[in-house]
Amino acid sequence: MRIGILGTGLVGQTIGSKLVQGGHEVMMGSRDEANPKAVAWAKDLGHNALFGTFANAAAFGEIIFNCILGSASLAGLRQAGAENLKGKILIDLSNPLDYTEDTWALTVCNTDSLGEQIQRAFPDTKVVKTLNTINCNVMVAPEKLPERTNIFVSGNSAEAKAIVSSLLRDWFGWKLIMDLGDITSSRAVEMYVLLWRRLRKAVSSHRLNIKVVTE
Amino acid sequence: MRIGILGTGLVGQTIGSKLVQGGHEVMMGSRDEANPKAVAWAKDLGHNALFGTFANAAAFGEIIFNCILGSASLAGLRQAGAENLKGKILIDLSNPLDYTEDTWALTVCNTDSLGEQIQRAFPDTKVVKTLNTINCNVMVAPEKLPERTNIFVSGNSAEAKAIVSSLLRDWFGWKLIMDLGDITSSRAVEMYVLLWRRLRKAVSSHRLNIKVVTE
Repeated sequence: MRIGILGTGLVGQTIGSKLVQGGHEVMMGSRDEANPKAVAWAKDLGHNALFGTFANAAAFGEIIFNCILGSASLAGLRQAGAENLKGKILIDLSNPLDYTEDTWALTVCNTDSLGEQIQRAFPDTKVVKTLNTINCNVMVAPEKLPERTNIFVSGNSAEAKAIVSSLLRDWFGWKLIMDLGDITSSRAVEMYVLLWRRLRKAVSSHRLNIKVVTE
Repeated sequence: MRIGILGTGLVGQTIGSKLVQGGHEVMMGSRDEANPKAVAWAKDLGHNALFGTFANAAAFGEIIFNCILGSASLAGLRQAGAENLKGKILIDLSNPLDYTEDTWALTVCNTDSLGEQIQRAFPDTKVVKTLNTINCNVMVAPEKLPERTNIFVSGNSAEAKAIVSSLLRDWFGWKLIMDLGDITSSRAVEMYVLLWRRLRKAVSSHRLNIKVVTE
């Protein structure tokens, strides 16, 4: 499959590398046509790894990953262009985090979420929020945790969530994928990130996740 | 031990009953001196179960549980009285939930929390936020879940958190108790409640909790 990755940070690189290793063609997009991080990443991974602008990557991908920082996501997606995203699934990993304070805070929460803002801004795109509740090392290697843990999908399209769930299983090895509801459930997983940060401090590791236990 | 329970709802009754069954003297406090729910509860449980006003229960208890609805907690605690709470541990189970909408929302979050508001309003009381991340049936019977799960403690006093953790083990059977930090970490566990609600819908059960899995 042809996949567009928006964002050249650690999340984009980790997801992109895993997908190239899985035999997919991946284009990493950034604000500039030849972002040094994207160029180095593509050179390292061979001819199935490409780079370009946000718009190039969005046009290239049959499925798009939003790995842009939360604070820059809406601007980056506008550069990617509604036409290039139209009719496609956008897998949204972003968190609306404000890192300026030592205590993290969200720039939107409670009665709205970044997932919803993105869905409203791109009504012809099927936004599926997922993977934002874990560090990128866990995203692509859930089996490295000692037990199976949960990830979540939120979105308005049941079909898109089913496709994304299937891809999360096939590409990354996720077994426990829970559908939380429509895109308003992005609020819940984005707000959880403040608990994730406290857990990370408490266990002194980024490699952590939660398992939902019920009767 | 003498324990004051503020609030006569399901949470207060469940906690209070478990403590009376454990051999403690428990006074359930409410706005009115003889709240019908508190009177019925006390009659049902025998002479170690007492009832009175918020102020009576706060004066009676060596340790106090805040089981008042989030929206009424600060007003109820003011009725309990700073003098009656002074120097004591207040175990705060409340969540600042606005139930008026079908989609739950918090009345305070992100850069503040109900736990912090209570601590600021009662600076001479040691507030420990805990147990707000689970349904009351799970609070007093964690062993009924098929696996051990986590609860969290937040508070400014390390000594108070250690005491509360010990009581949670002895009284209710909790094994995995994680210290999340000072009272500002109340934000994280209160904001998690929106995820809890989505999980409850997804698994169709109130009897659920999360287990933190790390390497």
